[in-house]
Amino acid sequence: MSRAALLATLRGVVGHAHVLTHDDPACDLTAYEQDWRRRHRGRALAVVRPGCTAEVAAVVRACAQAGVAIVPQGGNTGLVVGGVPDASGQQVVLSLQRMNVIRSLDPANLTLTLEAGCVLHTAQQAAEAAGLWLPLSLAAEGSCTIGGNLATNAGGTQVLRFGNARDLCLGLEVVTAQGQVWRGLSGLRKDNTGYDLRHLFIGSEGTLGVITAATLKLFPRPVAQLTAWAAVPSMAAAVTLLGLAQRHLGADLTGFEVMGQFALSLVDRHFPALRVPLWQESPYCVLLENSAHDSEAHARARLEALLEAALADGCVSDAVVAESLAQARSLWHIRESIPLAQAEEGLNIKHDISLPVSRIPAFCADTDAQLAQTIPGVRLVNFGHLGDGNLHYNVQCPPGADSVDFLQTQEARINALVFDAVQRHGGSISAEHGIGSLKRDTLPRYKDPTALQLMRAIKQALDPQGIMNPGRVL
Amino acid sequence: MSRAALLATLRGVVGHAHVLTHDDPACDLTAYEQDWRRRHRGRALAVVRPGCTAEVAAVVRACAQAGVAIVPQGGNTGLVVGGVPDASGQQVVLSLQRMNVIRSLDPANLTLTLEAGCVLHTAQQAAEAAGLWLPLSLAAEGSCTIGGNLATNAGGTQVLRFGNARDLCLGLEVVTAQGQVWRGLSGLRKDNTGYDLRHLFIGSEGTLGVITAATLKLFPRPVAQLTAWAAVPSMAAAVTLLGLAQRHLGADLTGFEVMGQFALSLVDRHFPALRVPLWQESPYCVLLENSAHDSEAHARARLEALLEAALADGCVSDAVVAESLAQARSLWHIRESIPLAQAEEGLNIKHDISLPVSRIPAFCADTDAQLAQTIPGVRLVNFGHLGDGNLHYNVQCPPGADSVDFLQTQEARINALVFDAVQRHGGSISAEHGIGSLKRDTLPRYKDPTALQLMRAIKQALDPQGIMNPGRVL
Repeated sequence: MSRAALLATLRGVVGHAHVLTHDDPACDLTAYEQDWRRRHRGRALAVVRPGCTAEVAAVVRACAQAGVAIVPQGGNTGLVVGGVPDASGQQVVLSLQRMNVIRSLDPANLTLTLEAGCVLHTAQQAAEAAGLWLPLSLAAEGSCTIGGNLATNAGGTQVLRFGNARDLCLGLEVVTAQGQVWRGLSGLRKDNTGYDLRHLFIGSEGTLGVITAATLKLFPRPVAQLTAWAAVPSMAAAVTLLGLAQRHLGADLTGFEVMGQFALSLVDRHFPALRVPLWQESPYCVLLENSAHDSEAHARARLEALLEAALADGCVSDAVVAESLAQARSLWHIRESIPLAQAEEGLNIKHDISLPVSRIPAFCADTDAQLAQTIPGVRLVNFGHLGDGNLHYNVQCPPGADSVDFLQTQEARINALVFDAVQRHGGSISAEHGIGSLKRDTLPRYKDPTALQLMRAIKQALDPQGIMNPGRVL
Repeated sequence: MSRAALLATLRGVVGHAHVLTHDDPACDLTAYEQDWRRRHRGRALAVVRPGCTAEVAAVVRACAQAGVAIVPQGGNTGLVVGGVPDASGQQVVLSLQRMNVIRSLDPANLTLTLEAGCVLHTAQQAAEAAGLWLPLSLAAEGSCTIGGNLATNAGGTQVLRFGNARDLCLGLEVVTAQGQVWRGLSGLRKDNTGYDLRHLFIGSEGTLGVITAATLKLFPRPVAQLTAWAAVPSMAAAVTLLGLAQRHLGADLTGFEVMGQFALSLVDRHFPALRVPLWQESPYCVLLENSAHDSEAHARARLEALLEAALADGCVSDAVVAESLAQARSLWHIRESIPLAQAEEGLNIKHDISLPVSRIPAFCADTDAQLAQTIPGVRLVNFGHLGDGNLHYNVQCPPGADSVDFLQTQEARINALVFDAVQRHGGSISAEHGIGSLKRDTLPRYKDPTALQLMRAIKQALDPQGIMNPGRVL
């Protein structure tokens, strides 16, 4: 099929208005062709915006017939260049943004069924309107979509209690690489009727098919959420505090974030109005959240009892408990401002790594020292979801150095140093961001070779033409 | 390779003592060849008992070279004839029972790494000895193994809070159908480096490879577990009570079982010493469990507040809270005695179904009526994990009828009636037991055809010779 014939077919499927090409000088495709962090600008053959599952299936069939590659795209907020076309001008971007219908909410079953293009924040609001809670929360929630969240198995700040995006998903509707529809939407908590296709598509970054809709778990809203901020004398003390908090609070511990002193100093420097507490005293601070279903008074008493035990143990040197919702929000706001503060400070080399929680103190001690020795004066913006073993272990150039030059000359070397250390400590080089094209060439160095073989066999079996998001993951 | 050559190779790998065949008149293979419910007696070419992962891999390679099928087997407690050989005398049973080493327990990471042949109860005890909790609990826990639990994605009584077996697993070690080892043991809570092979092998019932070891999540032990027993006026009231309990108790609600009046009457008749409470008053009773990390007094107050709210609402007509651990255990013992009581009453037609919780009242109303109309006098032993939407909806013959004859003449018809109703209400024909060979021929009638195609493509990709547990699932 010629390019023109394919475009005509696609226009027939989704309508003229929803096939965008460079032929139309009024069309600006930048938003579809450039990734969120602006590390890559591709060029699409066309951007196609289907409005329903049948249209997605017809688009995939047309592309399969033409042998044209498809790049599924949600909110285009990914961090590993997994959802934008390459530079060839030969790939079709399949944008799910028009598929944004909330299909149903079942309060007795605690489930929400919605289309892939729904923005996460919209889904959160739909749950809230029913008095319920969709506990998936991440920085991009105002523009990322449910389909993207699932395709990349998003993480965020609630993983400690509720798991990753995959753990919130009960069922999927998927268009396969052959353009068939798997109708796997299900509100079932138990279903042992064959291979778990749901978990195979979740996290496959659009390389096996297109997620068009999902059924997600909802939860009753807690009656109180209490937030505390604690200064800890070391990373080992932070791990001790985590264990203590898990024993005291059980599943009511819904957040446990660690922030290094340099990361907090950047927030203090660039956003002084945020008034970061306790950061000057300690190498690390921890943000804890206690969500309760009984009463705020009881939740506060439990959190205070935990902090008293931690002070007595010595794993906390000082702590504050937010007195109001506004105070709690401002503490979370400090945590969420770290990425902005480090951007203000200049470019840096980002890592999204995970480790067994028990290995984090040794990993940090080893790797901090190795980096300091390799690049004297180097600065670490180290923060993350300690409860999940997930660190954003970012490396900033020495004071006064040129950050652009630093990135160009040091990125490969620093990545190798950090990833080798991660591997020695039994960790993962991508905790929540995925592989995309950014880490595709790095993956084989760190992934078990049998796992890679199994992944390639699955890719070949489900997408023998290789048209689904080629060049990503594998 | 001849049969004799294969056996010689296998003996070379695992040692003479660990290759059992019918050639040795002293060998009784019944325990390996007959399934738990004695619905099937097969005949094995040999039973091979490797002692380590390398031996498993060598056994699989030898069988692959000989083109001989492998039936992986754990504790042989499965309910769908998935782990015993067929009658051909040509299949090798690969028993994992000798691989029962607990490799490590990491208290700071809350993980337990152990071999597939570990008995579940042994794993529970290892966690308990460290002051921690492995919240996987099912009737067969004294003899089922972790490998079998994962291969079949076992359910049980803690799913409401902790999910199925798959949700407790962070990493796997697997021998592939080619005899390669995937070293995927990991204590990571986040790892987005490619397709989720773990969830693909979990629940695949030995048809894609052999699970040889796993890393499981552990949890802090609660300080108190309170149990209540409530009479409810209808299944709809039980669903209302579930919602109320979820709002009051949040994640501390760790058990929610429903039991129909006839099921309880059988316990009362066959085990009168158990003294079933409240069963005569109501069509259903509910067993609730509240696990707390603060104090027993507070947990009791919360449970009592919940029951008061439920009495006021009318969804509960009467209730008792266990005053002691012994009382709590005896309430759970009643629940667990239902299968034994129904066995005392005679054979019956068992169903392990799941539905969206919201659909359960309508499903029961429809299906109860349809069965009563089809087979006058038929009796329903209806009980299960209502919090998970999972019912054991078992059909007992009319009083005085011959239960063997009933099973022979009515099973196919009743299965079709129940499964068709399950499908109409958006449910699954196998919630926690799996497919095995028992439901293999039934599956295509109820499973989405695209899902079946995807499953077949995956099977073909990972086991092109078709030697892994053939005739099961697909």
